[in-house]
Amino acid sequence: MYSLYYSPGAASMVVHWLLIELGVPHELRLVDTAAKQQKSPEYLRLNPNGVVPTLVDHGQPLYEAAALVLHVADRHAEAGLAPAQGDPQRGLYLQWVLNLANTLQSPLRLWWYPQDIDGEHADTVKDGARRRIESTWERLDAHLAANGPYLLGERLSAADFYLAMLMRWTRNMPRPGHEWPHLAELARRMKARPSFATLYEREGLTEWA
Amino acid sequence: MYSLYYSPGAASMVVHWLLIELGVPHELRLVDTAAKQQKSPEYLRLNPNGVVPTLVDHGQPLYEAAALVLHVADRHAEAGLAPAQGDPQRGLYLQWVLNLANTLQSPLRLWWYPQDIDGEHADTVKDGARRRIESTWERLDAHLAANGPYLLGERLSAADFYLAMLMRWTRNMPRPGHEWPHLAELARRMKARPSFATLYEREGLTEWA
Ligand SMILES: N[C@@H](CCC(=O)N[C@@H](CS)C(=O)NCC(=O)O)C(=O)O
Ligand SMILES: N[C@@H](CCC(=O)N[C@@H](CS)C(=O)NCC(=O)O)C(=O)O
Repeated sequence: MYSLYYSPGAASMVVHWLLIELGVPHELRLVDTAAKQQKSPEYLRLNPNGVVPTLVDHGQPLYEAAALVLHVADRHAEAGLAPAQGDPQRGLYLQWVLNLANTLQSPLRLWWYPQDIDGEHADTVKDGARRRIESTWERLDAHLAANGPYLLGERLSAADFYLAMLMRWTRNMPRPGHEWPHLAELARRMKARPSFATLYEREGLTEWA
Repeated sequence: MYSLYYSPGAASMVVHWLLIELGVPHELRLVDTAAKQQKSPEYLRLNPNGVVPTLVDHGQPLYEAAALVLHVADRHAEAGLAPAQGDPQRGLYLQWVLNLANTLQSPLRLWWYPQDIDGEHADTVKDGARRRIESTWERLDAHLAANGPYLLGERLSAADFYLAMLMRWTRNMPRPGHEWPHLAELARRMKARPSFATLYEREGLTEWA
């Protein structure tokens, strides 16, 4: 049994989505980020980084959204969302999850929280983050054009759920990820999954539906 | 057979170190980063991010240092550097590798390459990155104090090699990672491994020996 500490639309969203997609029993624990509950002593005992998500798996608290993507996809390998060890695509799968973490989630964090670097130069930090994000969209779109429609070609994987979440986060940026045509096609496919509708309903989401 | 595109002491170092530790045949391809070889059309075909490392595994180029850590440790599972799937420590292992990528490697990149965000405000970016790195050392040292000596307790894993490399990168920062006592102890243990001496010899490294 899993417990997921989440906040609607936050980095927990991809974990929630995968748990729904995989049909795995789980309970949700809402973290009130507006009230800074993620910085409370109780929460910091689960996740000393003070961020969502945290996934409790058999009593063990685990954090880092990308690690949780890898973990739940492997734990429920029968669904085929992660190439198994020994599969020739395993290395590429790990590469893409880490590449999304480094070249999208990390600058997106700076876009949303420029004060992580410097609150007084927030515009400078946001602008640098935006340029990095846009160059990532350019590179990913070229990859999908040549090797799509999913990150691993014809094969859907957990990495695509992660990419769709990150694309959603840019929906109000000057150039959202879905402005690139092959990224738009990936978004369309991911949004068409029944698990996406369930996720939106359970998290009370409406934007980017 | 592996080919590793590397530059001495760069993010390729942990992959090289693991290949030595695992006793796996591999060939090295030096990338002359001073001459910007990592931005050449030939290299960008292997790794469109234009950075080292790239590991070619059975003809397949793979990138992202943290992904390569996960990949080679799993491919040579008999060495026990990665808890196997189903092992209760598997989730924690993934968590730590991703946590090092997000809370150390990513701000360390900004410390070394502030122009990734903004070259004109380089000092501001570096200062913000330094504060994030130091707060990570604080958190990791507390973790090792309570649960060490390695990230997974008594059990050495590939994550510790990654941590030692990242600690090395801070050797000339105002507060290097090894100033924290439990991080220093982890560094001492990692440097005592015969594979570390071989690595230093092959990459021609001397600092932080
Ligand atoms: N590297 C972390 C980052 C998570 C993160 O940045 N979460 C945000 C929401 S998307 C958060 O909790 N923000 C509240 C805060 O930083 O106080 C992960 O992937 O889990
Ligand atoms: N996220 C990448 C980052 C690698 C990286 O930043 N490599 C540096 C050396 S440590 C590099 O190639 N720098 C040259 C450049 O950026 O042009 C990884 O983990 O592989």
